[in-house]
Amino acid sequence: MALRAAAFDLDGVLALPSLASALRSTEEALELPRGFLTDIFQKECPEGPNEQLMKGKITFSQWAPLMEESCRKHSKASGTSLPENFSISQIFSQAMVARSINGPMLQAAIALKKKGFTTCIVTNNWLDDSDKRGSLAQMMCDLSQHFDFLIESCQVGMIKPEPQIYKFVLETLKAKPNEVVFLDDFGTNLKPARDMGMVTILVRDTDTALRELEKVTGTQFSEAPLPVPCNPNDVSHGYVTVKPGICLHFVEMGSGPPVCLCHGFPESWFSWRYQIPALAQAGFRVLAIDMKGYGNSSSPPEIEEYAMEVLCKEMVSFLDKLGIPQAVFIGHDWAGVLVWSMALFYPERVRAVASLNTPFMPPNPEVPPLEVIKSIPVFNYQLYFQEPGVAEAELEKNMSRTFKTFFRASDEMGLLSVHKATEMGGLLVNTPENPSLSKITTEEEIEFYVQQFKKSGFRGPLNWYRNTERNWKWSCKGLGRKILVPALMVTAEKDIVLRPEMSKNMENWIPHLKRGHIKDCGHWTQIEKPAELNQILIKWLETEVKNPSVASKI
Amino acid sequence: MALRAAAFDLDGVLALPSLASALRSTEEALELPRGFLTDIFQKECPEGPNEQLMKGKITFSQWAPLMEESCRKHSKASGTSLPENFSISQIFSQAMVARSINGPMLQAAIALKKKGFTTCIVTNNWLDDSDKRGSLAQMMCDLSQHFDFLIESCQVGMIKPEPQIYKFVLETLKAKPNEVVFLDDFGTNLKPARDMGMVTILVRDTDTALRELEKVTGTQFSEAPLPVPCNPNDVSHGYVTVKPGICLHFVEMGSGPPVCLCHGFPESWFSWRYQIPALAQAGFRVLAIDMKGYGNSSSPPEIEEYAMEVLCKEMVSFLDKLGIPQAVFIGHDWAGVLVWSMALFYPERVRAVASLNTPFMPPNPEVPPLEVIKSIPVFNYQLYFQEPGVAEAELEKNMSRTFKTFFRASDEMGLLSVHKATEMGGLLVNTPENPSLSKITTEEEIEFYVQQFKKSGFRGPLNWYRNTERNWKWSCKGLGRKILVPALMVTAEKDIVLRPEMSKNMENWIPHLKRGHIKDCGHWTQIEKPAELNQILIKWLETEVKNPSVASKI
Repeated sequence: MALRAAAFDLDGVLALPSLASALRSTEEALELPRGFLTDIFQKECPEGPNEQLMKGKITFSQWAPLMEESCRKHSKASGTSLPENFSISQIFSQAMVARSINGPMLQAAIALKKKGFTTCIVTNNWLDDSDKRGSLAQMMCDLSQHFDFLIESCQVGMIKPEPQIYKFVLETLKAKPNEVVFLDDFGTNLKPARDMGMVTILVRDTDTALRELEKVTGTQFSEAPLPVPCNPNDVSHGYVTVKPGICLHFVEMGSGPPVCLCHGFPESWFSWRYQIPALAQAGFRVLAIDMKGYGNSSSPPEIEEYAMEVLCKEMVSFLDKLGIPQAVFIGHDWAGVLVWSMALFYPERVRAVASLNTPFMPPNPEVPPLEVIKSIPVFNYQLYFQEPGVAEAELEKNMSRTFKTFFRASDEMGLLSVHKATEMGGLLVNTPENPSLSKITTEEEIEFYVQQFKKSGFRGPLNWYRNTERNWKWSCKGLGRKILVPALMVTAEKDIVLRPEMSKNMENWIPHLKRGHIKDCGHWTQIEKPAELNQILIKWLETEVKNPSVASKI
Repeated sequence: MALRAAAFDLDGVLALPSLASALRSTEEALELPRGFLTDIFQKECPEGPNEQLMKGKITFSQWAPLMEESCRKHSKASGTSLPENFSISQIFSQAMVARSINGPMLQAAIALKKKGFTTCIVTNNWLDDSDKRGSLAQMMCDLSQHFDFLIESCQVGMIKPEPQIYKFVLETLKAKPNEVVFLDDFGTNLKPARDMGMVTILVRDTDTALRELEKVTGTQFSEAPLPVPCNPNDVSHGYVTVKPGICLHFVEMGSGPPVCLCHGFPESWFSWRYQIPALAQAGFRVLAIDMKGYGNSSSPPEIEEYAMEVLCKEMVSFLDKLGIPQAVFIGHDWAGVLVWSMALFYPERVRAVASLNTPFMPPNPEVPPLEVIKSIPVFNYQLYFQEPGVAEAELEKNMSRTFKTFFRASDEMGLLSVHKATEMGGLLVNTPENPSLSKITTEEEIEFYVQQFKKSGFRGPLNWYRNTERNWKWSCKGLGRKILVPALMVTAEKDIVLRPEMSKNMENWIPHLKRGHIKDCGHWTQIEKPAELNQILIKWLETEVKNPSVASKI
């Protein structure tokens, strides 16, 4: 019978380094006999303090003094000396804080789940009420989204290797023993599983265990897997009325300094699906906004409702209503213009600012803005977008085609007529009626965008392009200013509209600008190179926002 | 013509100590001649750096070196010596950080707005891009909700005392000059307003200014005003699916450590309306949840969906989906039971726990729980609640009557038959059909509760009472545990059901328990004594959560 469920141990399997290895290191550091701590922890009479701990009869803080007492007794009996300040609580807390998720093992679990496996974590765990319990909380919070079930001994009152917990696992997984693969770093915990007929894998090192898991499940685990996108049904959806009649919808994940993600044209909060979980897990509170005109946010018909000054004021109101004094603003495409404007006009509300693809382009006060647009060939589509109703009709006609034609990787056929849309009378005229699916999207994702745009269509989104004169006048007010809040510009090598070289003079306006550059990346940066982008953003956020003392001061 | 609009200066009026007084203190500290800094800042030629700063032509960080240059020139010319490390940026940042909202002045503005006045802030302000700009951001965020308009010189490109900004104020307020009262701490800024016909008040000290404002507006400002409740239309509403088919709705405000507010029976997130803004302004991220069965959260009909084990698991899932590893849990009434359970069963997810009115009551494993309830006369209503459909019919019949009868202050006629509901065949039988409005609610607030309960009625809420056996069995699992995470018990002197003495043995289970006690307070603690409760909660949160190093360690 084929395997269709997988049970993973936590400590030593999904989380490393294992507690056992931490205890061994402590034994060495304190010059205790090898096995001194591990033996006391792992070997004891039934119903002793350790079993009580693991079964949730007592909490960690109740158990620690009992364990310490055992250690002292054991040290006396064995003639070992314990240091004056010997603290079990501290030893365990340090081990828990040092432990982190075993990435490749988690990726394997995610791959199996994606393949249709039911997955669970089965762990001998405790009720952690220590000062350092936040690290366990963070780990469980991060893991929870990737598994169907979490079976903790302290919650179910059963521990490995007691046979009843394995029965409980099977009931939970709704599986027969020979449908389940069970991974643990202790042979004793595997024995009952094997005896019942489960396939077992003893995890000594991750690589070997994963090769074995590949073999028994007939799955190949990817070397460098993509970040995991979030699922719209599994995230928190927020709604804020920023002014009478205008509501902004956003998706929210994480705890920490607020980071507002602002998408471009013609997109959705969902364009950040690979960034949201990654930034949340890095310790930030992500607010991925449906920008005005899009998705579940309001989409008034008037052009002037999309003037940059109005949009920025509404972002300030968004923060005001949410009671958030300051946020990091990260924007892409049109929202790149927005986030640079936020930094120029509301620096006190901007903790830091980053733009993907969109350079900071100060206005030329001498030249009317439409003239500037006319002088840049690849901006031709923006002229085509000016006449209300025209581009709406084209882009709304077959939205699946629209999005499949827009969202393509840099090395896939570029289909849009961005530089001769006015001449051709359209953006899609030379493109197939049934475009192939790009490698950077799935059918389900395209369908999600289509559904999002069914509510309000393209009028609101296109109106962002129809305020050139207004935006020019407003932005001229900021001509004497520099951007001196922490700032990051991420260029994408193969974006043919927002080309990296357009950003070359930005240091004149943003002297302390930090930069990131992504090779072989086209316009849709967040979904074409999610791993590279996440790495750049997280490194920058950690330096500039979490540890500003080490960052260069203004 | 009667006044109907009010314009308040920020610095020196709504925010104290004023920048001018901070500069004077700096002059003294640095032994500079009196007026050295204030003169340079306030007196300069038109279109000099200060005017450029205030009109938003340059930012604070661009201006600071120019101002420093002026100071050095001035010091040379006047033979004054400046310290080696003289830094304008630092002097201003310190002044901004030290400044805070002038409570009585803000309360006066709020009182006028409530009376129907249109209110605005008119300030000569700058684009703050300094390291310490967060303090200005916090202040503007806190003030924004209480004023109709905010007019900042750096945003509008006009400064006081230029006549055009006063015209702009009138246009914004849609008022004639003689309908407006204008408050400022500089006579020069009042002169143009007075010349145009506005009523002006020179603010030298807050008390005198407020007496004058009372006189000209014909308003009496309250000595100890209530905290300001939030408005359901002005807050962020979040929705999380915690398991298939079950969604929790919450209201969210603030940035900082997450604090989940969990209401009791038969209430709403709205029961925390006085706490939400106060905790947010104290630097916490408040999530005020519509508990399962209530308001915009799901309300499945099954009794077992409201077992405490299920409810707690869903709270963990709530945190998981939101990506929040740990939160403070504050519960009232039934949710007091829930938050104590969270601390016992999921301590790693609980940053700290507080209960209002509801003591921690460990189960008696020897006595069936309904027997315990029968033995406590004031718990008689809980027996009446057992039979599905009965209390639903009574409480849903006229919900305005229900809520007006429930939500009453401790010194108002107690109308509910909590201790003989079974005998009387109802809770409301002896109460008037048209109860008077309690002093602790308004008609609009009662109507809000009615609307909230129109969606799902009382079945879900009453089901919380119908899991006594299940809850007892589950809670017996925690009998050997203690609660060792930071914990607070707030007793209300005059709650006749959840009496303060019921909490007297709690230290046996929660040895480090902190306590708060509110006198002359009945069951509806959040709305009967909001100021007292907010003070207790904020002090506790600041000690235990924001500055845990000074709090007693576990």
